[in-house]
Amino acid sequence: MKTLVLLSLLPLGVLSCSTSNLRGTGDLGVVVERAAGSIMLVETTQRTAIGRVGGLGDLSHASIVFSRDARYAYVFGRDGGLSKVDLLSARIERRVIQSGNAIGGAISQDGRLVAAANYTPGGIRIFDAGTLELLSEVSTGAKVVGIVDAPGNRFVFSLFEAGEIWIVDASNPRNPSVMRLADIGKQPYDGFVTPDGRHYIAGLYGEDGLALVDLWHPERGARRVLAGYGRGEEPLPVFKMPHLRGWAAAGRYLFLPAIGRHEVLVLDRISWTEAARIPLRGQPVFAVAQPGGRRVWVNFALPHNDAVQVIDVDAMKVVKELRPGRAVLHLEFTPRGEQAWISSRDDDAVAVYDTATYAELARLAAAKPSGIFLTSRAAMTGF
Amino acid sequence: MKTLVLLSLLPLGVLSCSTSNLRGTGDLGVVVERAAGSIMLVETTQRTAIGRVGGLGDLSHASIVFSRDARYAYVFGRDGGLSKVDLLSARIERRVIQSGNAIGGAISQDGRLVAAANYTPGGIRIFDAGTLELLSEVSTGAKVVGIVDAPGNRFVFSLFEAGEIWIVDASNPRNPSVMRLADIGKQPYDGFVTPDGRHYIAGLYGEDGLALVDLWHPERGARRVLAGYGRGEEPLPVFKMPHLRGWAAAGRYLFLPAIGRHEVLVLDRISWTEAARIPLRGQPVFAVAQPGGRRVWVNFALPHNDAVQVIDVDAMKVVKELRPGRAVLHLEFTPRGEQAWISSRDDDAVAVYDTATYAELARLAAAKPSGIFLTSRAAMTGF
Repeated sequence: MKTLVLLSLLPLGVLSCSTSNLRGTGDLGVVVERAAGSIMLVETTQRTAIGRVGGLGDLSHASIVFSRDARYAYVFGRDGGLSKVDLLSARIERRVIQSGNAIGGAISQDGRLVAAANYTPGGIRIFDAGTLELLSEVSTGAKVVGIVDAPGNRFVFSLFEAGEIWIVDASNPRNPSVMRLADIGKQPYDGFVTPDGRHYIAGLYGEDGLALVDLWHPERGARRVLAGYGRGEEPLPVFKMPHLRGWAAAGRYLFLPAIGRHEVLVLDRISWTEAARIPLRGQPVFAVAQPGGRRVWVNFALPHNDAVQVIDVDAMKVVKELRPGRAVLHLEFTPRGEQAWISSRDDDAVAVYDTATYAELARLAAAKPSGIFLTSRAAMTGF
Repeated sequence: MKTLVLLSLLPLGVLSCSTSNLRGTGDLGVVVERAAGSIMLVETTQRTAIGRVGGLGDLSHASIVFSRDARYAYVFGRDGGLSKVDLLSARIERRVIQSGNAIGGAISQDGRLVAAANYTPGGIRIFDAGTLELLSEVSTGAKVVGIVDAPGNRFVFSLFEAGEIWIVDASNPRNPSVMRLADIGKQPYDGFVTPDGRHYIAGLYGEDGLALVDLWHPERGARRVLAGYGRGEEPLPVFKMPHLRGWAAAGRYLFLPAIGRHEVLVLDRISWTEAARIPLRGQPVFAVAQPGGRRVWVNFALPHNDAVQVIDVDAMKVVKELRPGRAVLHLEFTPRGEQAWISSRDDDAVAVYDTATYAELARLAAAKPSGIFLTSRAAMTGF
């Protein structure tokens, strides 16, 4: 009661300030400005930039996850920096240098833990998501790639040199338990988990195929699928390694960018066999499914990195080609799929497309933009 | 308290006010208090109630959708009231009485339109999501049931008496176009869209089976699937109609509460045939898939409405039974599946469970709670 009375005595300016500053965080996002070490904050309703946060270190190959309330972005820098950025006040809330060389990270299912994956010295470090206090470390003796969260507060990742997949149960975060799956294949270079949280898949660089783990039955180990995937048989020059985090799950199919080849491979999630190959303009980097739709959008390595091609899943062929700008590095959809956000590094721009008409809805200035991450990822497994 | 007031008079006080009032909206939710005509606002991180908004009219059978920024809840009341509630300031921003008798609503893919489905006079009304201005009306001459949003700013719904499914393209919201699919089956009573936005399915009350529409090819019309579903052959007394909006899609399977029978039917999304029937304690009402997991949770009609049973999708059988309270009306998962929120009307409580351990994490007092809706629905097609 006293509190209420006192609040009513507050000057009007305070109340209006608090009301006008309020905003939802479901339509926010972050664009990585890799050269400047900054991130640009955006919103997807009016499609504008609303702020910028610098001082984040080396953001080449940066990745980002979001807190479960969609207020904070955790930025994993290449230099081992881990920063917690408040999207509402546009400032760094906390920042630690957690290793010498990091490549990605993940947030636990319950949102209480953040895990950073390290090249050097190799391993993962688990932090309290609130304070960034270091809770535990899992040493691997090999580069960690393809880290994802999985149900049960687990983190799953692959070891490049060792050819292993590790499943870390962090339910007890100061003393996590580790399950090691050995001999999963040569040189896993990236990995992802299916949207239902059941299957972890690692792409192999050292041989053809992918390693598949059923996380409902990890004791069964990994099996090899899609022997035609990879570059083992007929190695081609690879201008840029594809990313598997931009997995494209559309209905029963997964669309996987081939390594070095000018095609996307389509993996049937029921039979785990190859369903199709779709010819493309160049070497694909990301293949991303448009949510709630029937399209998969693909960007490319040099020399075709000014193009984006759109695959129709029903027809299993390219139906549209866009030219969003020079050096297209990434693309991200709004969660219900009505907009595609595409970064063009060499044009210092982010282009926003209407996915129904392919009309350009907006073009935002950004300094050498790379990754684009929207807060809707906070609600998704494996992002 | 005095300190707070003094601080608020200083210039710095304005900053601290605005910072302390800021919060993300990704972990918010709403619990319908049907008897009081109010909603309780909750957050799922600390699992607490943070406010209450009254004056919402008749909330029996109320449904709720969220704005794309996850700040506003649109509440569709049984009395035709449509209210836009600001979750951050806990107040009604706008409210209209849009018809005499409504049963549900949906929000368009782009978040700009809200559609209310009406029993009386029958039809849907399309409103501007910002202002609640009426933009257009589609008259049907029959009760509208099972309204959902679908990609392409479409609304899809069924007509109970007419036995039709209508697809309304609201891209031009003042002049929507309508596609009518006739003879889809007798007395469709509810409907849902698959998470990928491709298939609309209506349950039939007047005969056995479900009506399936491929929204990629609506010109092909509806086909009948799962002839064993329904009550046409051997009608049983139905104590409460099951809801299909709580569809449960787990991998390739859909789990559908049978009408009147003590079982869930499992529909294979690849072959569209019956994959299994799972015996249950009573007549199921909602069957809801735990996100990122392998469980489906089911609640029941009288006299078993104090129980919740948990199905393991891998084993295709019940593996757990909970007793959350008397008259369990609804359940909702946090978007990554670590918590289950369950309303117990006759115990005036909402129970929150840890889905990994089934431990009760919290129990919140609520006045005759029914539906529970979390803001993560803002990012999902068909919710």
